[in-house]
Amino acid sequence: MTDSPDSKNTSAFKHKDQYYRDYLQLDTILNAQHMVSSEPGNIEAHDEMLFIITHQAYELWFKQVLFEVGAVIGIFSQENVAEKDVALAHHYLNRINRIMPVLISQFDIIETMTPGAFTDFRSYLNPASGFQSLQFRQLEIGLGLRAAERREFGGQTFHSRLDQRDRDAAHKATEHASLLEVMIKWLERMPFLEHKDFTFSEALKNVVHEMYEADRERLRNSDSPADGIQQQLDQIDKTEAGFDALFDAEKFEALRREGNLRLSMRASHAVLFIFLYKDYPLLQIPYRLLTQLIELDENMAIWRFRHAQMVSRMIGSKIGTGGSSGHSYLIMTADKHRVFTEISNISSYLIPGQFIPALPDGLAKKLEFNFES
Amino acid sequence: MTDSPDSKNTSAFKHKDQYYRDYLQLDTILNAQHMVSSEPGNIEAHDEMLFIITHQAYELWFKQVLFEVGAVIGIFSQENVAEKDVALAHHYLNRINRIMPVLISQFDIIETMTPGAFTDFRSYLNPASGFQSLQFRQLEIGLGLRAAERREFGGQTFHSRLDQRDRDAAHKATEHASLLEVMIKWLERMPFLEHKDFTFSEALKNVVHEMYEADRERLRNSDSPADGIQQQLDQIDKTEAGFDALFDAEKFEALRREGNLRLSMRASHAVLFIFLYKDYPLLQIPYRLLTQLIELDENMAIWRFRHAQMVSRMIGSKIGTGGSSGHSYLIMTADKHRVFTEISNISSYLIPGQFIPALPDGLAKKLEFNFES
Amino acid sequence: MTDSPDSKNTSAFKHKDQYYRDYLQLDTILNAQHMVSSEPGNIEAHDEMLFIITHQAYELWFKQVLFEVGAVIGIFSQENVAEKDVALAHHYLNRINRIMPVLISQFDIIETMTPGAFTDFRSYLNPASGFQSLQFRQLEIGLGLRAAERREFGGQTFHSRLDQRDRDAAHKATEHASLLEVMIKWLERMPFLEHKDFTFSEALKNVVHEMYEADRERLRNSDSPADGIQQQLDQIDKTEAGFDALFDAEKFEALRREGNLRLSMRASHAVLFIFLYKDYPLLQIPYRLLTQLIELDENMAIWRFRHAQMVSRMIGSKIGTGGSSGHSYLIMTADKHRVFTEISNISSYLIPGQFIPALPDGLAKKLEFNFES
Amino acid sequence: MTDSPDSKNTSAFKHKDQYYRDYLQLDTILNAQHMVSSEPGNIEAHDEMLFIITHQAYELWFKQVLFEVGAVIGIFSQENVAEKDVALAHHYLNRINRIMPVLISQFDIIETMTPGAFTDFRSYLNPASGFQSLQFRQLEIGLGLRAAERREFGGQTFHSRLDQRDRDAAHKATEHASLLEVMIKWLERMPFLEHKDFTFSEALKNVVHEMYEADRERLRNSDSPADGIQQQLDQIDKTEAGFDALFDAEKFEALRREGNLRLSMRASHAVLFIFLYKDYPLLQIPYRLLTQLIELDENMAIWRFRHAQMVSRMIGSKIGTGGSSGHSYLIMTADKHRVFTEISNISSYLIPGQFIPALPDGLAKKLEFNFES
Repeated sequence: MTDSPDSKNTSAFKHKDQYYRDYLQLDTILNAQHMVSSEPGNIEAHDEMLFIITHQAYELWFKQVLFEVGAVIGIFSQENVAEKDVALAHHYLNRINRIMPVLISQFDIIETMTPGAFTDFRSYLNPASGFQSLQFRQLEIGLGLRAAERREFGGQTFHSRLDQRDRDAAHKATEHASLLEVMIKWLERMPFLEHKDFTFSEALKNVVHEMYEADRERLRNSDSPADGIQQQLDQIDKTEAGFDALFDAEKFEALRREGNLRLSMRASHAVLFIFLYKDYPLLQIPYRLLTQLIELDENMAIWRFRHAQMVSRMIGSKIGTGGSSGHSYLIMTADKHRVFTEISNISSYLIPGQFIPALPDGLAKKLEFNFES
Repeated sequence: MTDSPDSKNTSAFKHKDQYYRDYLQLDTILNAQHMVSSEPGNIEAHDEMLFIITHQAYELWFKQVLFEVGAVIGIFSQENVAEKDVALAHHYLNRINRIMPVLISQFDIIETMTPGAFTDFRSYLNPASGFQSLQFRQLEIGLGLRAAERREFGGQTFHSRLDQRDRDAAHKATEHASLLEVMIKWLERMPFLEHKDFTFSEALKNVVHEMYEADRERLRNSDSPADGIQQQLDQIDKTEAGFDALFDAEKFEALRREGNLRLSMRASHAVLFIFLYKDYPLLQIPYRLLTQLIELDENMAIWRFRHAQMVSRMIGSKIGTGGSSGHSYLIMTADKHRVFTEISNISSYLIPGQFIPALPDGLAKKLEFNFES
Repeated sequence: MTDSPDSKNTSAFKHKDQYYRDYLQLDTILNAQHMVSSEPGNIEAHDEMLFIITHQAYELWFKQVLFEVGAVIGIFSQENVAEKDVALAHHYLNRINRIMPVLISQFDIIETMTPGAFTDFRSYLNPASGFQSLQFRQLEIGLGLRAAERREFGGQTFHSRLDQRDRDAAHKATEHASLLEVMIKWLERMPFLEHKDFTFSEALKNVVHEMYEADRERLRNSDSPADGIQQQLDQIDKTEAGFDALFDAEKFEALRREGNLRLSMRASHAVLFIFLYKDYPLLQIPYRLLTQLIELDENMAIWRFRHAQMVSRMIGSKIGTGGSSGHSYLIMTADKHRVFTEISNISSYLIPGQFIPALPDGLAKKLEFNFES
Repeated sequence: MTDSPDSKNTSAFKHKDQYYRDYLQLDTILNAQHMVSSEPGNIEAHDEMLFIITHQAYELWFKQVLFEVGAVIGIFSQENVAEKDVALAHHYLNRINRIMPVLISQFDIIETMTPGAFTDFRSYLNPASGFQSLQFRQLEIGLGLRAAERREFGGQTFHSRLDQRDRDAAHKATEHASLLEVMIKWLERMPFLEHKDFTFSEALKNVVHEMYEADRERLRNSDSPADGIQQQLDQIDKTEAGFDALFDAEKFEALRREGNLRLSMRASHAVLFIFLYKDYPLLQIPYRLLTQLIELDENMAIWRFRHAQMVSRMIGSKIGTGGSSGHSYLIMTADKHRVFTEISNISSYLIPGQFIPALPDGLAKKLEFNFES
């Protein structure tokens, strides 16, 4: 970065002088590319350099992403998370979501390698594979992907292609709290779902019920053909019933036991509360934070999708094999390995602004700044 | 665009004077946004403007993409396609592949609409739906997606949500030759697969067989444990067998009858020929053209994937419904609606450069420039 | 957008049924492309369609950007801007900053038109020019670019290439408050620069002075060569002096009179206060808002830079003319037409966290949430 | 990359088994980040990790870009460049132009570091500076930027901030042929500017003259007001005169001596020939290659522009200093350090397709494939 003397406001006391090349350890970084194709007996393949550097760039950025994810987990591992720290966590997640598009764009680079050029050195790399990226596994684990949810390729067991050292590291990662877990706990602690005689879930159920009752009333009074009306009434019943599972502890737990839900009912309510009342100052950053989690999930999914496409383009699939191998597996995991889907799915419970239950004054006040104090 | 007098090399003879606003019909374009939410009785929703303009921008670009796809189909509908025209077709496809990333990025824009903001005006738009985009359907049809391959949502019949006019237009689109069809015919006419006593498929099969025989020989002479050797020998057999379907007319036709293949065997061979001999001057543009088709297919898939994510984020999915509705359908079609997969899959038949059969001189000469002539 | 029945939580009462094509006025939008090159007597130029549609897409998005800028100006035109509204303004600015990259990417599309292809129809468009985009002018004016600051091309007077109607509209735009103006007023009203006997500017000047005094002390006690020490002492004096203009009303006004400053001294202090204390809950969104203004300025600059490059590529410059015409003008304005530079320049006054003066308790409390209340 | 057994067509003979982590030297790459801020006595700054990794990612990609630039220079250093190799050079340049947008996007990442966060560790890095990136200098030198053209910051001499080792390496880079130089030589050797009694420059001058004569004739016969006609006649004279410098050896050399031109007259004619006859098969790849050079130049300029913006945002500029320091310098070099401007400027000499002189049959035949041979 340019160094302009007039802009330094910091102590002139000299630390050790730094030099760009040494500070960044460039002698190390820029000499860590060894092309196997250029070894004696092999045929040098120009594009192996691109292959190496692209993968190294990925791993560098994975380190950065893991570093930020770790910081966010650290923040939410505190028992009380100060507003300042929520903002910091949002800031780090936003950073990750700026890194991800660059990682996604890097596929545009690697795809300038023709499949033919890859074929020229592919056999030298045997049996190394991108499946062996420890950091990518640590990232998915750190976000909250559980081993049981992971779809493994070709029936292989978890981490089967890692060597012992990487396998140990991957298993160790599963022992730490994931981002998903600490977020859930933070959401569950949110103290705004009840306030004196106000209960968020009751208030919401009531307005939803009134909203649908009004619809039913209008329909009964309309002069449309009877069967059309009945169809619409049935639809309303179904839609209203859709709210139930979110507010009925028993139904909710049944679904959880089936393994379909990651969030607890209380955490889900907290998400919905934040979605509905996001304009209150105290909830502005939390709402943006939840949005960052959704975007992170989406970015990971896009990365996996692009990765699947790249693999497909490079190694193809023989006729008659149904493209069943790597490609289909990777395409399938693109979406399935998301971990925050229940946050984005909460949109399904939103209602238009005019129907959202007003908060009692005392509660509203807690969510606002209070200049008189 | 800036207008600098020194750079005009064209007739000074005056055509009708053009004015930016009139030339672009901006009075029309910029007054075609009607917010339903601002009608009497409704509650004005600021974000409806974004919703309208984003969709209009999509449709404008779809028109452009259709225009270019039409031009490419026109080029390949000729009986003899001059090299100049192949280059032009490549140029137009490259243009489409520059438009697509912009269309994909537009999701970043629409996603600045919060799900809550969408909920505020969503009911006003009932039952309009992005499924009703005629141009997007025409595009998929124009590329070569057949009605039978289209996965429809919720068992609905083809085009069921279009009105009669759009349905007619969509059906009409199916009557024209698709890009896939004209490309196949062009590939089938490629005159280089046989040359005097040289037959590409035979030559290739031979070197592949020799390649694997050499592997077998080395294995038999190795002093590795016997069962490891057997495993590798089995693997070689399997891999070699994988070549068969591509060169065995009967097996190939059987697969075609099952509906799994869009390309004929001859067209597939032409693709493989172009992939292997892409460095010959005559094949340089055709190879780049095939790559553009793969990228177009990929870009369409990414667009559909991002679209699925956007829908999911905006409308979510209620707990217990398994997110089974729009989202899963859209995610599934993202990859399944690709039409040029067999071109990218041909990579599976590539062999390292040193094994590629040399072309006979007479044939090679046809593929090169001949300055002596 | 996909329409999945289970996710509607809104009144079933029927509004007028909407159909995608009619709602978006596609019959209008998609029939507003008239290629002059296809008129009788002209030679049809395929790429004119791209030229038209790209410009229309730009104008569509300019409308959206103007719509959002207008909303933000509206918010900050209020005498008291509620936190909720500051967050909304941030949200709209963030949206603009997601639109801008798409507008910048659109140059990738138009640049697929070869200069030769443009030459084929360029004379038909005479003398229409992108300089005639009213909306782009309105945008620059709305952000705060003053006529006096605008560098006009070739000595032409302001708006000289617009017709009367557009000229009137452009002049009218100058009569409204700009984003810059309303932001300055909002910053000036910020009530945190003084609190009882705490004055932000004094507190900051003091710590800065102490910081440099400590540096001087260390230098005087060091055993480095005397002239090196003197050089560093001079540097410290110079750096400290650099703080003066920001806190000295007379010096500041002198610079303002020279026309170099857009922000008042008080507004500048408010920016610096927000930069330094951005972690306090009340300042989190304002800080992000200022960052959005910087990014908007940068995005506009990048757009202008890319535009300049595109023009240069399309129409070039004859040898010996020094490329002096359109290109150099446009390159020059890319950065010079920024309006929020003083916000990004405030970074020059930042000091490391450990030196930032602590706020008095009473003031700090105003900037935090107060759950006990 | 995924490793799917059915898609390997290569020798099963075992090379040394590769493991992902070892092949990519990840133990080296991922342990080369040392945060100075975490040393004893310093205050740890979270964002220093981002700072290090971003710069390392830049340097990794610079290595790749230099690798490709070197390969292209190698290709054009041959006395006869086979078509196959021109295509390969185009391929590598296209790759660089896919890398550049990623490098440009990386500014989005580093800009998530707030200026405040940078201030917290900036003094520890003293006096290291991005100006010390040897590879970036090597890249500019390799493309063809000459020391005399380089605008140095603050009157500093060339490379003044590099240490001796880097200075030596930078000087060594200037001793090799640059991409610009080898391209010029290749263009000068192009054998199509004369063919028997056809001379490209004469043929072009003739049609241009006829074109303008026809314009003059039409004007003289028009019944417009006399002074308007005279104005247009003057304009035509001026435009026609603009062609002169390109075709008049004396005028051209005069401009070259002034140091304004990098290309020789013959090389310029070759560029124009390729631009005008780009549809001939032999010129398709050369035309695309020239376009890649223009895009590379533009991408470098955008990178420098974004870099200038980033520096400006991070360190700002104190009031009254006029922002004169790093920012203005960097902004200025963004465009000035381009080296292929004369290629894009050639667009100024293009004429509409119907006026382009037809090539004599013998010459045209050389530019086409000849299937009868």
